Parts: sequence; C-alpha cells; structure tokens
Amino acid sequence: MGATRIIPTLFRENGRNDLNALERQNGFDPLAEGQAMLRLIAELYPICRSITGDGLRETLRLLQRQIPLELREVPTGTQVFDWTVPKEWNIRDAYVKNAKGERVIDFQKSNLHVVNYSVPVRQRVGLAELKEHLFTLPKHPDWIPYRTSYYKESWGFCLSENQLVGMKDEEYEVCIDSTLEDGHLSYGEYFLPGEMRDEVLISCHACHPSLCNDNLSGIALAVSLAQRLKSIPRRYSYRFLFIPGTIGAITWLAKNEEKIANIKHGLVLTGVGDAGALHYKKSRKGTAEIDRAAAHVLKHCGQAHEILEFSPYGYDERQYCSPGINLSVGRLSRTPHGTFPEYHTSADNLEFVHADKLGGALAVSLEILSVLENNGTFVNSSPKCEPQLGKRGLYRMIGGTPDAGVSEMAMLWVLNQSDGENSLLDIAERSGMRFDAVSKTAKALEEHKLLR
Amino acid sequence: MGATRIIPTLFRENGRNDLNALERQNGFDPLAEGQAMLRLIAELYPICRSITGDGLRETLRLLQRQIPLELREVPTGTQVFDWTVPKEWNIRDAYVKNAKGERVIDFQKSNLHVVNYSVPVRQRVGLAELKEHLFTLPKHPDWIPYRTSYYKESWGFCLSENQLVGMKDEEYEVCIDSTLEDGHLSYGEYFLPGEMRDEVLISCHACHPSLCNDNLSGIALAVSLAQRLKSIPRRYSYRFLFIPGTIGAITWLAKNEEKIANIKHGLVLTGVGDAGALHYKKSRKGTAEIDRAAAHVLKHCGQAHEILEFSPYGYDERQYCSPGINLSVGRLSRTPHGTFPEYHTSADNLEFVHADKLGGALAVSLEILSVLENNGTFVNSSPKCEPQLGKRGLYRMIGGTPDAGVSEMAMLWVLNQSDGENSLLDIAERSGMRFDAVSKTAKALEEHKLLR
Amino acid sequence: MGATRIIPTLFRENGRNDLNALERQNGFDPLAEGQAMLRLIAELYPICRSITGDGLRETLRLLQRQIPLELREVPTGTQVFDWTVPKEWNIRDAYVKNAKGERVIDFQKSNLHVVNYSVPVRQRVGLAELKEHLFTLPKHPDWIPYRTSYYKESWGFCLSENQLVGMKDEEYEVCIDSTLEDGHLSYGEYFLPGEMRDEVLISCHACHPSLCNDNLSGIALAVSLAQRLKSIPRRYSYRFLFIPGTIGAITWLAKNEEKIANIKHGLVLTGVGDAGALHYKKSRKGTAEIDRAAAHVLKHCGQAHEILEFSPYGYDERQYCSPGINLSVGRLSRTPHGTFPEYHTSADNLEFVHADKLGGALAVSLEILSVLENNGTFVNSSPKCEPQLGKRGLYRMIGGTPDAGVSEMAMLWVLNQSDGENSLLDIAERSGMRFDAVSKTAKALEEHKLLR
Repeated sequence: MGATRIIPTLFRENGRNDLNALERQNGFDPLAEGQAMLRLIAELYPICRSITGDGLRETLRLLQRQIPLELREVPTGTQVFDWTVPKEWNIRDAYVKNAKGERVIDFQKSNLHVVNYSVPVRQRVGLAELKEHLFTLPKHPDWIPYRTSYYKESWGFCLSENQLVGMKDEEYEVCIDSTLEDGHLSYGEYFLPGEMRDEVLISCHACHPSLCNDNLSGIALAVSLAQRLKSIPRRYSYRFLFIPGTIGAITWLAKNEEKIANIKHGLVLTGVGDAGALHYKKSRKGTAEIDRAAAHVLKHCGQAHEILEFSPYGYDERQYCSPGINLSVGRLSRTPHGTFPEYHTSADNLEFVHADKLGGALAVSLEILSVLENNGTFVNSSPKCEPQLGKRGLYRMIGGTPDAGVSEMAMLWVLNQSDGENSLLDIAERSGMRFDAVSKTAKALEEHKLLR
Repeated sequence: MGATRIIPTLFRENGRNDLNALERQNGFDPLAEGQAMLRLIAELYPICRSITGDGLRETLRLLQRQIPLELREVPTGTQVFDWTVPKEWNIRDAYVKNAKGERVIDFQKSNLHVVNYSVPVRQRVGLAELKEHLFTLPKHPDWIPYRTSYYKESWGFCLSENQLVGMKDEEYEVCIDSTLEDGHLSYGEYFLPGEMRDEVLISCHACHPSLCNDNLSGIALAVSLAQRLKSIPRRYSYRFLFIPGTIGAITWLAKNEEKIANIKHGLVLTGVGDAGALHYKKSRKGTAEIDRAAAHVLKHCGQAHEILEFSPYGYDERQYCSPGINLSVGRLSRTPHGTFPEYHTSADNLEFVHADKLGGALAVSLEILSVLENNGTFVNSSPKCEPQLGKRGLYRMIGGTPDAGVSEMAMLWVLNQSDGENSLLDIAERSGMRFDAVSKTAKALEEHKLLR
Repeated sequence: MGATRIIPTLFRENGRNDLNALERQNGFDPLAEGQAMLRLIAELYPICRSITGDGLRETLRLLQRQIPLELREVPTGTQVFDWTVPKEWNIRDAYVKNAKGERVIDFQKSNLHVVNYSVPVRQRVGLAELKEHLFTLPKHPDWIPYRTSYYKESWGFCLSENQLVGMKDEEYEVCIDSTLEDGHLSYGEYFLPGEMRDEVLISCHACHPSLCNDNLSGIALAVSLAQRLKSIPRRYSYRFLFIPGTIGAITWLAKNEEKIANIKHGLVLTGVGDAGALHYKKSRKGTAEIDRAAAHVLKHCGQAHEILEFSPYGYDERQYCSPGINLSVGRLSRTPHGTFPEYHTSADNLEFVHADKLGGALAVSLEILSVLENNGTFVNSSPKCEPQLGKRGLYRMIGGTPDAGVSEMAMLWVLNQSDGENSLLDIAERSGMRFDAVSKTAKALEEHKLLR
C-alpha cells in the first residue's frame, strides 16, 4: 500500500451546527462543498422526475455537466428478474379548473399536484366524484402530499387541505395531459476505475419530483463524492448509479449480474441534507467492512449520529441486500425517511436542506471511503518482543515521564496487533484510536521496515 | 407445512389480572379453562399422594376421566440407573392422642400431618421424646409444614406451631397406620401421536399430598394441554407424563431409553397457579428451540414474566437435563419454588391458586407449542431483488404514503431472511415481530409460490 | 489430581482496609505477610538500582537471603532480538555545589537526584546552562521526579521545584562520578520445579532506584509467593524472574527461546502496595485461563478491584504479549502506573506502600495460582439422571425443607456440568459459586467414584 488515499479526517465539529469549528484540512471546506451541493439541488428542484420519462432524462443531462455520467436506456417490457420495465410516463400539463375556468389545482405551480404516473384524463366531474381522486394531508393543511401509482393505472391530484376546503360543490374540468406509452427506463452510470477491479458502489435514487432531501440531497452528495474521488489515487474502482428507485436498482442488477461479484462495498445515499443526526443503516450482513468502517467514522466524527440495524424496508438497499444479491451495502441518511412530517410532502423543499448538513455528510462519506481505501492487514517484521523504536528515532529519548506520547501508543498498538490476523480497522477498534491515526502509524512503521 | 397448527395468539392481557382484557379468539376462553383446571385441582386436593401407593393410583384414575391416560406399574426393587424403585407406601390413618384420648394431631384433618413415607408406629411416649418427631414452622404459626422421608426409614408428624404450643407435658399415644412393603411405583402416561415420530415431552409431578400449586396446578395444566392438543392437527407427537418427582422421571428414562432420542423438546409444568409472574427456566443447553420459543412467547404475551438460566436444582428438569440425557426440556412455573413462604406448607391450598393464572399459563403453553409446531425454514424462490408483490395483489396499490402496512413489513422480512439459513423463529427474533405474524405471512407467501 | 494444592480462600475483607476482618485460615496471616514484605522493601529502598550495575546486583544478592535465586550476567553488546545489551552503568557520587561549596543537589541524600544512566560529568557552569540539565515537578514542588536516559548518552539532575527556586544565578560545580562501560546486565532467576514441565512465570522488574510501589512492592510479592510455593505440593513448575524492565525481559526471552513453550500462564507483578483497588490487566489473548482465573478470584475476593483490557503499554507484559511471543501473561497491580501523582517521583516512598495492601495482593495472587493448580475437567461417571447422593451419605436425609444446603448445590452443579467439556473454572463461572467450593466438591465426588 502506497500513499494515503483520499483525505482522511476531513471534518470534525466541536458541537452540532458549529461551522466555525470545522477543520479545513487539505483545502477541504465542508461548508463550501455543501453550498455547491445546495446550488445543484436548487437547479434540479423544479424538474418533474418520475421512474421513467423526460424529467429523469433532463436531470441526468444536467448531472453530465458535473461528472461524465453515461445515460442508459432500457426499453419498456424488458424482463428484469421478477419485474418488467414499465411504460414510460411523460407529462406536459395538468389542472383542475372550476366553473369560472380558474385553475384551482395547477401542475405548473407544483409538480407534486399530480399523482405521479397518472394516466391521461380530460373530463368534467362534480366535486363528489372528483374527491375520489384528491389527496390531502389534513394534519398539515398547507402542505401538498406526494403520491405515485406506478404499477396500477389510475389518476389523481394532490393538494393542500386548505385548497380542498375552498373548493365549492360545482362542476370541474379535469385535465392531465400525460402519456403512458412504450418507451424506456433511463438511468445514469459513472464508473471510475481504480487500481483494483474490486468496486465500491454508490447508489442514489433520482425519481422523485420536487423533493429536496428525498432524492436531490443524495444525488448532490453522490456527485460531490465522484468529483473528489476522480482527482485522487484510488485503490478501489467506484461505480455511481443515479437510478429510479426500486425498478432502477432491479434493472441494473438484472442487466449486470456478471459485475455484482466485483462490488465489495456500497452505500445508498439519501436524505442527507436535513437538520437531523446522521444515521447509518447496516447492510443485511451486519458486520461487513463497510458497516464497521461507517460505525468507526461516525463514532469519531463529532457529529450527532446513530447506527441502525438492517431492516428490509427503506431505499434501494432493499434490492442490494436481497438474499440472492446480498451485497455489503449500507445506507447513509440523516433523519430516517418516514419519521419526519415533511417526508413525501411539499415541505421537503429547498428550506428543508442545509449546506452545512450536506457538507457534513460529504465529509463523513469521504472518511468512510478513506477507511476502506487505507484498510489492510500488516505483519510485524520484528514480532518477538517490541522492536527498539528509539534507535530508529521513533521514541522519546528521555524516559520516565508519566505520560507517553499518543503516537508511540499508536506504534505499540499497530506492532502488537499486526500478526497477520488483524486489519488496521480491527486495531483502531480494539485500541479505541481513530483509524487515520492507526493508518498513518502503519505507514510510518512500514517505511522503517517494521511492518510488511 | 400445511395449515397453522394449534391456535396461536390465544391470550393477551392489557395489564395484570385484567380478565376483561382477555381476547377470546377461536373460542378459547382462558378464564373458563382456568376455572375447569381449578375444579380438577379441588377434586384432587384431598388425596394423600406420595411417590408410590394408592393415593397416587387414585389420582391417576381420576385423571383417566379427563384423558385416556395409561397407568404403569414398576415393581419395588427395579434398578433404574443409579437408583432402585423403593417399597410402596400406604397409609390408612395416623394420630397423636393426649392423655384424655383426644386426637391432638389427626391425619384425617390434613394428610400433611404425617411425614410422608413414615414407617408404621404404635407406641406411647412422653412429650420430650415425641418432640423429636414433630415438625413446625415457627415463623408461620398457623401453617403445617410438608415433610418427607422417602429414602431413610423414619417417622414423624407435622403440625402448626400453635398446636405444638398447646401440647402439655403428658404421655401421648402415637399411631401411624401405614405400610411400607414391596409393591409398585405407579405413573400415568399419555401418548398423542402426530405426523412425525419427533416428540414433545410434557412432564409434571404427581407425588405431593394436599398441595395445590406444587403438583396439582401442573397436573391440571398438563391435562388441559392434552385435551386441547388431541382435537387439533399436530406435526409433533406429544408424550404426557404424570409421575412421582425424581424417582418417576428416572424410572421412565431408564425404562424407555430407546425413546429418548425422539424427544426434541419438552416442558416441565409446575407451580403455575399462584399470583406471581410467569417464569421460564431454560434447558441445560440454554439456546434450544424450546428456550427460544418460550422467551419469544413470554416477551410478547402481555403477562409479567421472567427468564431463568438453567440450574441443576428444581423439578424433573434435573433428570431430563442431566449430562447423559441432556434433553431440550425447560420448565414453566409462576413464582419459583422455595421463594414464597407458602411453598411446601398447608398454605399452598385452594386459595393459593387462581383460575385466571392457570388460564394464563395454559395460553402461554399453547403459544409455545404453537411456535414449535409452526416453526420451519423456508427458501425464497425469487431471491434476486424483491419479488413484485403488487402484481400478486400482495401490496398496496397507491405508493407514497409515509407508513407501509405491517403485513407488507412481515412479507419483506420473511422474503429477505428466507435464504435457507433462518427459521421463522429466527426471523421473528430479528424483526421484533410476533412469531404468529411471521408464520401467517410465510404461509401466504408459500401459497403465492414465493417461498418453498 | 491429588490433594488440593496451595491454600485457596486465604483472604477476605469484609470491607476495605479492615484488617480485623481478615480470615486467618491455615495459619496464613495476610497482614503479617504484608509486614514482612514491607520490611524487605525497607531494606531494598536505599539502593540505587538501574537496568545494569552494582545496585541491581546488590539487590539480587539481598534477595538470595530470602530465596535461592540464581544471579545471571549477560555481557554488554549481546544481541537480544532487535536490541543490544547496553553498557553497564555505575555511580559512586554526584552533586551540584554552589559558589560557597555547599552541595545544593546531593546524590547522597536521594539517588533520584541523578538522571539514571547519566554519563560522568565534572565541570563548572552558570545557572542558565545548568538548568538545561535540571528536571523538577512544578505541580508538586516538594517532590523529586525520577528520570532515566538509558539509550541516549546524556546527563542531568532531578530536584524539587522548591530547591530549584532557591538556586541563585551563580557558578556551580557539577560532578557525576559515574561510569558507563562494557560490563554486564544482571538478573535473578529462581526455578521451582513441580509435577509437570508446564510452567507459571512470575516476573517483576528490579531496575528502579528508591521507588517503593514501582518495583519494590512487586519484588516483595514475588519473593513471598516463592517462599510459600516452595513448601507446598505443586502441579506446575514456577519460574520467578527479577529483571531490569524491558531489556531484561527481552534478554531472558531471547536467551531462553526453547523454554517459552513451557510457559502456560504468567503474571507480571508491580505496584501492589498502594492504597488503591486491585487491577488485573488481561493478557493479549484476553480469554486465557489466567485471565479467567484472575477475574474469578477478584470477583469473589471481597477487595475493591477492576479488570483492565489488554493494551500494549505498561510493564514487561509488553514483551511477553508481543505478537511473536504471545504468552498468557497478565499483570496484577493496584492503582495503574501513570494514573497517580506519586508515580515516578520521590513520593513513591515507604509511606506510600502498606502492609495490609501487600498482604491482600499476596492472598489474591495465591488464590489465582490455586485456581490454576486445581482446575481440571472431570467426567460424571453416572451421567444418566442424577446419581443417588443419599445412599452415599452425600445428601440430607429428611426432604421437604425449603432450602437445600449449598454443598448439595455444588454437587449438583459439578455433576451436571462434568460432561468432559467443562472445566471446574467453567463450572464456577456458570454456577456463580467460588472456585474453591467447586474444587472441593469435585474432590469429594471423585472420592465417591462419581467423577473421574
């Protein structure tokens, strides 16, 4: 193993939300990175994405300005494991007009107003019949819910409870100017080769319309990771997927079965921009290296965090961790989906995501990848008793002081544990030291021929 | 695996002792069952049982009115492992008369008054000499203790401290009209065949005289279990033993060594009628399926409960869990023996046991057996990514709601974990769901060919 | 296994520092033993020890009056693994005289005043230049620090901060009348053969000058252990090493590689006389028999105690637990080195160590060795059901009392667990009983042919 890859120890807060306390090592400024991520989110926010269609394609093309993403198209009807690639959905306009011809529900104001994948409709209906196709959130009367009907042909509108209350019992003109026809499922893929064929998979979903934390924050984080990784030496190859949720992951896995064995670690990124604590959800295996690396980095990151056990519900880790795939893929989020009221509503907007939180998630992601890049198992080449560090200039020269230096302690740990069984991450865990301290120590000892 | 066997989820309390909160599913009414158990206990209560003799035989014959029990007789002197079947003990009468000829201690009033297995005596003694054969409980001056002397020929009387205090220093006439002669050791056995030769052993001791919680509650519970099990489909065969403690279990094991290998799980039932919390004592193995099933059921049962580690002291689990037998046999009780003052005294009477507590123990026992009956390991037949539940009518049709239904969650857990390694009980434990929910889900998925 | 070896259960305090509560079993009086240890410490205290030289030799010769120690000499320049035996250091006198010719720093008053291994010096210097060679402890202005410079040729004086404050800016005469020349490294070795070639290693460092807890307490404990062990039957052989820290352990290991395989267990003894709680530091393996024996004894010892995980810093366990040696060697101390202010200062003096604490450490050490001596794995020769203890006189004859005796419980545990898999220590741990109770029970059962 050569030079330290990626830049570990990028980010530490003294307390929560304290941006002044960020360490800006190696020119890495998490807040500035977070601001760039926020700009990308703002650019993508207005687009009406779905699991297929032009909104998704436009999103991927905008991402191509950031990273050299390849756009893939899979035809409707393609069999992918137990599923079939659905018809492509596109929408130009949609509204409900009252008797005066006023748009009381207007797709142009928010693309959440239309139930995603609604079939084309053009009819006049009374309020009672219309209500069977209307969805609101009575508990949050100002918010528009987000609804989909991908696999059952249907139509509907989402609106705020306040809007609904204001609608009189009259005849309405309903129009959904959509198409649901044979076409393609689109996704973006960016493969960044490293020294090894072994891959790290970074996956995010890109199928939600105007929702910021849910989908755009993960996209922005994946883009920033790709940008940083492409400019530094990498042991692993990295594969970035920007895909429609569920069907996209299934499609990629079904079409790339021969590549699955190369994927040694992976992260699903989503919901990383809200103000909540970082949450790492373990892979199905539970003790994979990515699980241990993430737990280690979070433990030392100085940000509020929590480790979640695996469960088969959630985002595309469901597919990556299905029993016949069983990849070592965990998920990094902040507040878990479904546990905050803004989830899948119009309140998951540009104000709900924050540059510092996005930057913090980037820093932690980079540190996790840095652990994977720099982890390894060494053998102490002088294993019988301690080697004499002093004659190599590795030891304080005057003995007898009550406290020995931390770096000596790191040397003693690495030397003691490097019997060919313990990885550097094992040593970091057993010693309670940060991985980067252990890793730097191992490199110093390797240079002095004390490790091989 | 076919239809769900036994009736799971029979019983849940919202709080302790709240009979109104009992769910009466499938016509199962735990309180009514408990009342029937209490009637049986009342019928058996007056009989003077011992480890051999007519009291034990009479008890077994009364049980034959409830279930088709077979009565076995093993002759005195039979070698059973390290033990020998003892002489048979019978007693007609016993008393201590004072100088006026009044019975101051009278076996007819309570069979606890005679030390069980006392040899025949007929003599006149002064108080001082008599006292060497008298046993009281000074801390509980109204109660009569229960004492035995099975393996050392001896005699004695038990009485209340208050009785003893009232006895004057005069000559007494002592009579124990007992016999201790070659005869037989009796026990009852009921074998209920199932689909498999594999057996579940249900064992209770039936050797205590007028004690309700200690022995009669376990007998009543075993009878009720047998009655319910015989009327429903069973995967396992069930063997019920109503035996004298220690020597009965040793005798059965020694005489039936060829059957031991068929016993896959077992429960010793005793002390299940008092007002205390349910206690499951683990088998010697500690992680046997019965141990895990019992822990799971108790965790979800809504009744106060505790899990006890195995120890080699207690009831007949001592024999079933001896190192050369080592069966997966646990013990279900309420307050553990020896930890309540009424234990082995006349206060363990009909007022000490309660219909609702007996019914609660029955419900929990049935649920434990239901876990064993319905447990199994399946294989997801569509293991690569999730199968499309929607096209099989197994999934909500409109997506995007914040909370997905519980049964979908159960489907996802069962599908995700069914890789041939994890049993349904494993899945229930990992998911935190009730076994019956997991089991029903597995059956639904099996019907849709998603599991095999 | 024959008679119980060593004398278990030597020592129990009801509370801390309560010498009246000491049990004096088998003629063992921990306080008297501790007083003898304290006398030895007082005798050795004035000597100026170092990792080589006449102070170390004198110390070892004084120990030869206590135990038949062999004195070993290894020449300067001998290669020992990665290290080289250093030149031998000796010192006759050292001082700093002020302009009036008064000794303001005087080696005759305390041998801590000279930095250990200082090269010879004889010169006149001003205060400013002198200060570069002076070391104080400003936080403890009355104390003299202890400093060494073994592997870098240098010189210096240690003094109290109060002394330094009183030194005027004038010319001083500096004299260190030392020699640093080719010679030998000395150490003491005492081998006490037992029934087996398998050894227990007892190691303590003997290289510190006038420091009581750090080095002398460990020496005194090792001497007392050796004295007691040599007079009683021993299954294990015992090897006692009195060695200079680090280089001594490395030298012994390098020169005796063929003996290392015989060492099955070991203890490093140091810092056992202060008023703090006992601390056992686990071996690198963490679950070695010595680790479990020490944890068991401490749990039941009635003295305050703590178990420390292994770390590669500390005393000579660093060498014994290096990856290429990896012996099952733990460390017994009271307050861990470096965590009390008196550590490596003149305050680690005769008042800092206490007879009762030394005696308590001896008692615990003997109990740990007793566990090793008496541990073993037995097989129940009557494993099918319980053997009938009563017919062997091993059981109470009148049944039915609520509490069975403790020793019956021990018999049941030993019989139940003795399936050839569980050692007596395993049984003590599972049952929660003291090892000595389990061990005595096993012997009783062995005599009755119930164990083999």
